[in-house]
Formats: sequence, C-alpha cells, structure tokens
Amino acid sequence: MKGLYLVTDRDLCGDRSLEDVISRSVKGGARYVQIREKDQSTRDFIEEAVRIKEILKPFSVPLIINDRVDVALAVKADGVHVGQDDMPYTMARSLMGPGAIIGLSVETWKDVEEAEALDCDYIGISPVFDTPTKTDTKGAWGLDGLTRIRAFSRHQLVAIGGLNSSNAADVIKAGADCLAVVSGICAAPDPEAASEELVGMIADARERMDRA
Amino acid sequence: MKGLYLVTDRDLCGDRSLEDVISRSVKGGARYVQIREKDQSTRDFIEEAVRIKEILKPFSVPLIINDRVDVALAVKADGVHVGQDDMPYTMARSLMGPGAIIGLSVETWKDVEEAEALDCDYIGISPVFDTPTKTDTKGAWGLDGLTRIRAFSRHQLVAIGGLNSSNAADVIKAGADCLAVVSGICAAPDPEAASEELVGMIADARERMDRA
Repeated sequence: MKGLYLVTDRDLCGDRSLEDVISRSVKGGARYVQIREKDQSTRDFIEEAVRIKEILKPFSVPLIINDRVDVALAVKADGVHVGQDDMPYTMARSLMGPGAIIGLSVETWKDVEEAEALDCDYIGISPVFDTPTKTDTKGAWGLDGLTRIRAFSRHQLVAIGGLNSSNAADVIKAGADCLAVVSGICAAPDPEAASEELVGMIADARERMDRA
Repeated sequence: MKGLYLVTDRDLCGDRSLEDVISRSVKGGARYVQIREKDQSTRDFIEEAVRIKEILKPFSVPLIINDRVDVALAVKADGVHVGQDDMPYTMARSLMGPGAIIGLSVETWKDVEEAEALDCDYIGISPVFDTPTKTDTKGAWGLDGLTRIRAFSRHQLVAIGGLNSSNAADVIKAGADCLAVVSGICAAPDPEAASEELVGMIADARERMDRA
C-alpha cells in the first residue's frame, strides 16, 4: 500500500454523485478506493459497488468495501476494510480468501499488538487526527502515535483521519506508507486537483526521506 | 417449512434478553428462528448470532439471518432471509451454497412471479396484515392475497405480518405453510406459552384441512 487511498463519504460529496467524485479522484492519482456506506440498503450498496467497480477497472485501482464482507463477496471486490466493531479479521480472511486485500483499523495500542499476529495487508491508523467525519473512534493517535506504531509494527501503515495537504508530508515522515483521505477529497471543490496535490506531496515527502 | 417461525425484534423484548425470548419460544415449539438486526455493529451481530446458534443447537432449530449474508457465513448459520432491498436471491444462493435455507420476501405480484424462476426454500408473504413492527413494506396482502399466491406459486409459503392467535387458523386455511411471528412472541408476556398456543392452532388448522 503506497500513495493515496480515497475513502468515500457520500454526505460530503455535495451535489456531485459519489461515482463522479471517485472517478475524478482516481484520475488525479488515487491508488485505492474504499466505499463506506452505513445507511444504505444492502441492495443499493451492491448496485453502487458494481458501478464503482466498473469505474475503477480501467485504472486497475482496487475496490475495497468497508465492513460489509457480504457486499464485497457479492460484487467480487478486491478487498474489505474492517474496524474493531466489524467482522473479526480472521473470519473476514477466511471468507474473502488469501488473495483479498484486507485492512484492519487499530484504535488502541492493544489493537496494534494484536494485529502483529495477523496477516492483514495493512493496519489503518485511525484516526491520526481528530475529524468530524468519523465519530465512533477512540482518541487520535497524533504524529507521535504513528511514529511509535511505525517503530513497533511489521505491517504496512495506512494513516486516516483529518489528513489533507497541510499535514500529508508530516504524516508520511512519521511513518505512514499510505494516506487515506475522506473529506480532503470528497468535500474538495475539485476532487481531481485535490488528489493530484496529495499524490504529489506524498511522492515528494517519500523522495526526501529516501534521499535523507 | 411447517409450523411456527420466530422472527426477532429486540425492541419488543422489553427487559428480557433476546436470548431468553428465543429460548422460551423454541421450548414452546418454534421450528425456525430468524434474527433481524438493523442497528447493531457487525461485530455485535456476529457475537449475538453465535450465542443464539448455541441455544438452538439442542433443539435442532435452524438459525436464519435476516439480510446479512456476511453474518450468516461468519457464524455458519443455516440460512438467510432476503427482502427485495437486500442482496439479490441468486447472489445469496451462490454465496451460501445449495444446502442453505434461503427465503425471499414477496411484496408485490411481480415479486411472486419472479420468484417462480428461483429455487428459494420459501417465499415470505410480507406483510399479510399491516403491522407496526415493519414499516418499509408495500400494502398488506390480506387473506385474499395469500389465497391467490397459494393458487399460483410452486413455493412453500411463510406468512408474516400481524400474525397472532386471533388470525393464525385463518392464515393456515388461506394457504400458508408456516407462520412467521414477531410481536406475537417477542412482546408476549410469556413467549413460551404464546409459542405453544400458536403451534397448537397451526396443527389444529392443518388437521381440519387434512380431514376436509
């Protein structure tokens, strides 16, 4: 997991469709897309996921479904992201198979430690900064927490929560492999430009680190 | 599908646990249990389903999960019940396998016709009578609708919606194979006695029909 990871929030898309925002974000360089829906019917979620899978196909961008392994299996998505209130990781792996991308949110140090025993594809450091778009998480990790996890964990780290162009470079520097962005793209006036800017900042920060 | 089918609604259980109500209902003779949860986290739903599966095991009562194929797969439930806003039947069948019990709600005549082409284990006639416990359905079928479906459909018919001891006999007479009951059991002062009474009424109504 490297680069920019779009996590959707349809409420932030304003009068644009979710499909439009996603399409523009991948054109701007997002490398992964996770769709997160909490209030839709299963049928609507599946139909949406089918449409988004078609959008992503020409870009070879993996489609990752938040929480709902049923939806992921139904549409043959590339993976799922599970939080600590979702299906336990090992169950999700057993249902999704060894080839699926499965990410797991860590909200406490205990979660980080337990994740060491799991063969997840990444852990989601959630949230790095406090954010109004997700309110069911515990305290923010901050850059210090991220650094501490980087030193400890064998996993790829996807940072999420309050990430935008003002802090993207610092988050990469603190140890994130990949930046998951919600409102910084979904609520951006131009999701393509916002994605391009973030992709550029991630690449620059990584280049500076490689050089150092 | 014959006899009494408990469909749960935790809000109707009052100060009793869902597990307690289910346990008493199967002691009273319920032959199938469907758990329906709309507001729980996936993790909580899975943990609940595991507990309920243990309760049902000694009774050999199948556990059926409403809507959530992920939860059903995770706990190896016996089946799922899908409505018209849930996962399409053929997807659910392909994920659950040929041995699973899969029921499908029919709310319109078009649903009934389309179900003829499907190998579902039963169709849920939803709702037979108007009910406050489920508000996202179309108009009630009534006894006439049930009779009309019985004459047309090759499927087993599970009647649901507003069923209780005052109408159970008529619903069997109109053609239902099985009665799915929500508030008539979950909100009953004594779920075991309520289940026993319904089981007795179903058996009596069927006996009268066999004799006629």
